[in-house]
Amino acid sequence: MTSANTKSNPDANKAILMVCDGLGDRPSVNGMTPLQAANTPHLDALCASGISGMLDIISPGIVPGSDTAHLALFGYDPYKNYPGRGVFEALGADIPLHAGDVAFRANFATVDKHLRVLDRRAGRKGSKELAALLDGLEIEDVKITLKNTTQHRCAVVMKGEGLSRYVSDVDSHVAGTLVQDCKPLKNGTAERKTARIVNTFIKLSYELLNEHQINAERRQKGELPANIILMRGAGTPEPITSLKERFGFSAACVAGASLYKGVAQYVGMNVLQVEGATGKADTNLKNKAEAALQALEEHDFVFLHVKDTDNHGHDGDFEGKKAIIERVDAELVARLKDADAYLAVTGDHSTPVTIKRHCSDPVPLLIHGNGVRTDNVTKFDEFSVASGGLNRLKGLDVMPILADFMGYYMMYGT
Amino acid sequence: MTSANTKSNPDANKAILMVCDGLGDRPSVNGMTPLQAANTPHLDALCASGISGMLDIISPGIVPGSDTAHLALFGYDPYKNYPGRGVFEALGADIPLHAGDVAFRANFATVDKHLRVLDRRAGRKGSKELAALLDGLEIEDVKITLKNTTQHRCAVVMKGEGLSRYVSDVDSHVAGTLVQDCKPLKNGTAERKTARIVNTFIKLSYELLNEHQINAERRQKGELPANIILMRGAGTPEPITSLKERFGFSAACVAGASLYKGVAQYVGMNVLQVEGATGKADTNLKNKAEAALQALEEHDFVFLHVKDTDNHGHDGDFEGKKAIIERVDAELVARLKDADAYLAVTGDHSTPVTIKRHCSDPVPLLIHGNGVRTDNVTKFDEFSVASGGLNRLKGLDVMPILADFMGYYMMYGT
Repeated sequence: MTSANTKSNPDANKAILMVCDGLGDRPSVNGMTPLQAANTPHLDALCASGISGMLDIISPGIVPGSDTAHLALFGYDPYKNYPGRGVFEALGADIPLHAGDVAFRANFATVDKHLRVLDRRAGRKGSKELAALLDGLEIEDVKITLKNTTQHRCAVVMKGEGLSRYVSDVDSHVAGTLVQDCKPLKNGTAERKTARIVNTFIKLSYELLNEHQINAERRQKGELPANIILMRGAGTPEPITSLKERFGFSAACVAGASLYKGVAQYVGMNVLQVEGATGKADTNLKNKAEAALQALEEHDFVFLHVKDTDNHGHDGDFEGKKAIIERVDAELVARLKDADAYLAVTGDHSTPVTIKRHCSDPVPLLIHGNGVRTDNVTKFDEFSVASGGLNRLKGLDVMPILADFMGYYMMYGT
Repeated sequence: MTSANTKSNPDANKAILMVCDGLGDRPSVNGMTPLQAANTPHLDALCASGISGMLDIISPGIVPGSDTAHLALFGYDPYKNYPGRGVFEALGADIPLHAGDVAFRANFATVDKHLRVLDRRAGRKGSKELAALLDGLEIEDVKITLKNTTQHRCAVVMKGEGLSRYVSDVDSHVAGTLVQDCKPLKNGTAERKTARIVNTFIKLSYELLNEHQINAERRQKGELPANIILMRGAGTPEPITSLKERFGFSAACVAGASLYKGVAQYVGMNVLQVEGATGKADTNLKNKAEAALQALEEHDFVFLHVKDTDNHGHDGDFEGKKAIIERVDAELVARLKDADAYLAVTGDHSTPVTIKRHCSDPVPLLIHGNGVRTDNVTKFDEFSVASGGLNRLKGLDVMPILADFMGYYMMYGT
């Protein structure tokens, strides 16, 4: 018999899962990773009095995206529960989604008059005003919602009859190439209709944006015009069993970047707005620590996300990655370590500064809290925790383990 | 979006996977395994500057065959992609296979006039001339190809309408028993037809071989006659996605024994002919090292197989196994360790000299190369690597991990 969602006792424990994006790395400067080189007394102390190990977020050798990685860490098999990136972008941008909607991740971009991409990100500068021009457009019977989230980034949602997520990306990811036609990925009416509307919308976005006064001003200032919308990562929301239904506990999300808010919302977390949580270098970690502690008062579980570790990995910036790790230790971990809650710390994948991309190298994991077995590891880094008491687990294992420590366990058999 | 076969950069890295057959062992002489007892300075040095761990080739407790083991090591789930041993034997013998063909592993054997097996291997001596007598025979509408590979070993392929791999082995594997009837393993026309043709062929082989002049001469010299063909391991080629299609890289095989060439060819490797690579004690390891290095110039990935470690395991010969391991270290590893490529070294299963058979004890694995995390292991043996940084992986994990190091990674999500 499966007894899911058993709340074992009314005084069940609480937990914080802190995910530092792209945390794992490979040895480089002085043969060390940024995490090894960083001064992290608080993480090390947690490691010494907790248990640690390595985590294959999806499976050994499989490189996780940030979206699939977080699904796995939240306990959802990404091969069974992946609705497409656009869904998370839309949810993270607070666009409500309903069955049948098709959501996209999108960028303001810069193209020439032949629709050749000059800059995929329009100089990393979007415009709420230009976004408003496109928001609410109707093509055939399909209504389009567009929201500019951060910088050049947007979320786009199409609502209408007979749409499909199985259409190709318009963004070729390579500057200098022509904007790609959106193509149906299955031979069906819904796929053909969706592709047709995407293509119409892309052209319409150019027509409405290219000559706009805002872009004239950008050109005058020597800035790149935001003169087209490029879309990718089509997705549709699928029915999913929430964390609360699966484990029985309430969960909150403290994150700056919208993708993570989107995944958290998708699995039923309460996404909190935190002043100064930007997902960038200027993010206010102290505010995030306070927000997490406050969230613990009304929730059983708090997911706390730090994005900037990953940014430095993609930029190949060893010192920057080391510095944000030290900030995480001093501003977040120092504050959270005495919370009356289990504390798990990990990454969602490795983004080594040496290769500037996600890779499948496993990430370190530590779990600290009442009754957790200890091991001999006293330093939280990729090398030390490999001999930790948790050995080598998978991303999908984390949530059931935490749920059991919390007292909300899934029992199989009697 | 799933981005399989993404080639991350044009300067992707290369890799060598060296498999020492039956490498793993159990403690025996002085409480040590042959690998522990062997003097292997080069393997130990790779271990010290690389990462190591244990590998369950299929799954803990499941004893791998050499064929399924190599499928797993090449990244193919042997429970989903096993076409039957005969397919690999035929491919390894350079007999082309097409859909619907049924291939068998076969032996020259010695039987008495009652078709009682006196020696399953005809004194381990085959005959190309006797093989030629049987090659090309037709029974009903089925054409039979037979090739004598090494010693008593043969590959047999049947081509014709409506054949099936689901027939039983004729070889009972036990001397003193009668040659077994080939029986249909499913109640279908194809199975009945295939079994009928096998039985006819077996009897025909006895009729054509028993009184042949070559066997008369063998008897005169006191040798066992090669007077029948025994068949087993029926298989049919199944459609399979090649390594190149799956991972994007080109691969070459350097091996002496035909089974391994067959598996390599099945997954799309370019099987190289190497002078002196025999798969036996007299194999020329130096030639294999040079062949592997040369193959690396035109391929991204090289699979290098050493058979003789397994032979000594089956013979229960501790000193022989230790000696071939030392030769591997001195003649292969010493030459390969400075190649500009990732180098992975492992076994396909354990063949302990104490039990003289394959067993499920995990095998040691080391991975060495640029950016690989290290651990504290400085000796490559079954005991030392158990505390290595790779922990305990499965055979199926090896290829995705190497592919990611090479830059031909499989990403799931964005």
